[in-house]
Amino acid sequence: MAYELHYWPGIPGRGEFVRLALEAAAADYVDVCRGDEQQGLGVPAMLHWLEDPSVPRPPFACPFLVDGRTVVDQTAAILLYLGPRLGLVPQREQDRLWAHQIQLTVADLVQEAHNTHHPIAGGLYYEEQKPEALRRAADFRRERLPKFLGWFEAVLARNAGNARRELPRLVGGRLSYVDLSLFQLVDGLLYAFPKATRRALKKTPHVAAVHAGVPRLRRLAAYLASERRLAFNEQGIFRHYPELDA
Amino acid sequence: MAYELHYWPGIPGRGEFVRLALEAAAADYVDVCRGDEQQGLGVPAMLHWLEDPSVPRPPFACPFLVDGRTVVDQTAAILLYLGPRLGLVPQREQDRLWAHQIQLTVADLVQEAHNTHHPIAGGLYYEEQKPEALRRAADFRRERLPKFLGWFEAVLARNAGNARRELPRLVGGRLSYVDLSLFQLVDGLLYAFPKATRRALKKTPHVAAVHAGVPRLRRLAAYLASERRLAFNEQGIFRHYPELDA
Repeated sequence: MAYELHYWPGIPGRGEFVRLALEAAAADYVDVCRGDEQQGLGVPAMLHWLEDPSVPRPPFACPFLVDGRTVVDQTAAILLYLGPRLGLVPQREQDRLWAHQIQLTVADLVQEAHNTHHPIAGGLYYEEQKPEALRRAADFRRERLPKFLGWFEAVLARNAGNARRELPRLVGGRLSYVDLSLFQLVDGLLYAFPKATRRALKKTPHVAAVHAGVPRLRRLAAYLASERRLAFNEQGIFRHYPELDA
Repeated sequence: MAYELHYWPGIPGRGEFVRLALEAAAADYVDVCRGDEQQGLGVPAMLHWLEDPSVPRPPFACPFLVDGRTVVDQTAAILLYLGPRLGLVPQREQDRLWAHQIQLTVADLVQEAHNTHHPIAGGLYYEEQKPEALRRAADFRRERLPKFLGWFEAVLARNAGNARRELPRLVGGRLSYVDLSLFQLVDGLLYAFPKATRRALKKTPHVAAVHAGVPRLRRLAAYLASERRLAFNEQGIFRHYPELDA
């Protein structure tokens, strides 16, 4: 049975981290909200899981994955679940746990990137919190972005064998879902904060190599060129407001 | 060998979620930063893992757990690792994954509670971001706090058997680490936002019952009365600034 991915249809957002793993493994999946309501898909199919009181274990938010009777929300938990099933994480428990920790740290930076344009409330428009956003984004560019990318760089630099690899890996010697997520994270940061991110990447060459190398993988290249890949936009997590970059 | 818990010594913070699980299971553990520097403990012992370039898999931040050769950071990942070892989560993979999702949602609310007093930058003082904090806290009290507690309430209400239990459980019929975490979360919220949290708890009776019931468990009662339990204070994640509550 195909995996069901439930996420808002108009933005890459957090759903894209899951989508990249499914695509890299050529997994059979349905992108539920982008399907036809006449066929029981679309946003109403997602809202059933979030809002129907008969759901015994309701997801808190999307993205979530439905696999038969298993429902998993929280992006990092979805990838923890999918990783072994898609062959995108090493076998050893220690390695899987390490991959998960890295993924949770990706999630933290995603949240901080979101908070640059929504420092006060997710329910208000950007325009209603712009002075605060200007202050928060300045701190993000100066402190947080270099700190996080510096940590990913250390993880890559300390992983044996990466000095000889054109595409360095975060965990072990083979591609894992965290490499795909780091690509997506950097891609989003380059969209939202092109100046600050390019500056940070100069000091983190392994991170830059992951961002450059992942789109050259055969299945990823095909996916990224397809219409299944959604473009970043100003409804999503990574938004390009030029006044927030420098 | 004893587990090593590494966390800042002066605040309960995120470390407390791990400490409660260790205490509830009467596990052998060392609270590293609160130990004696002369004996190789204290904050320098923690900083080794965070800062020494010879550490192959460096934690991003504390809390982290050291168990022999395994180092785990990210609070929810630590509990994912400890849960089965401490007998504080059911055996089935589906249940463990569900517990982990709930824990990640606890972590999200912890972060949002922190952001009420630090909406702009973790590196600035509260006093340097007070106007923004006032705005963010108002949204937190009105929108976020009821939304999250309402979700925990739904999880508890939909878990079979809880109607008959004095201490309801989040996952299955036995105590799990997420019950302890929900207690700690509510305890922190009651410290930081007594008015808003008491109001929200009136609509979430199962959540209130978890908060009331956990401290009556024998080992927890002993721990909470001991000097190992740290008090909330204005250096931590949950801070009581009366102007942020209403």
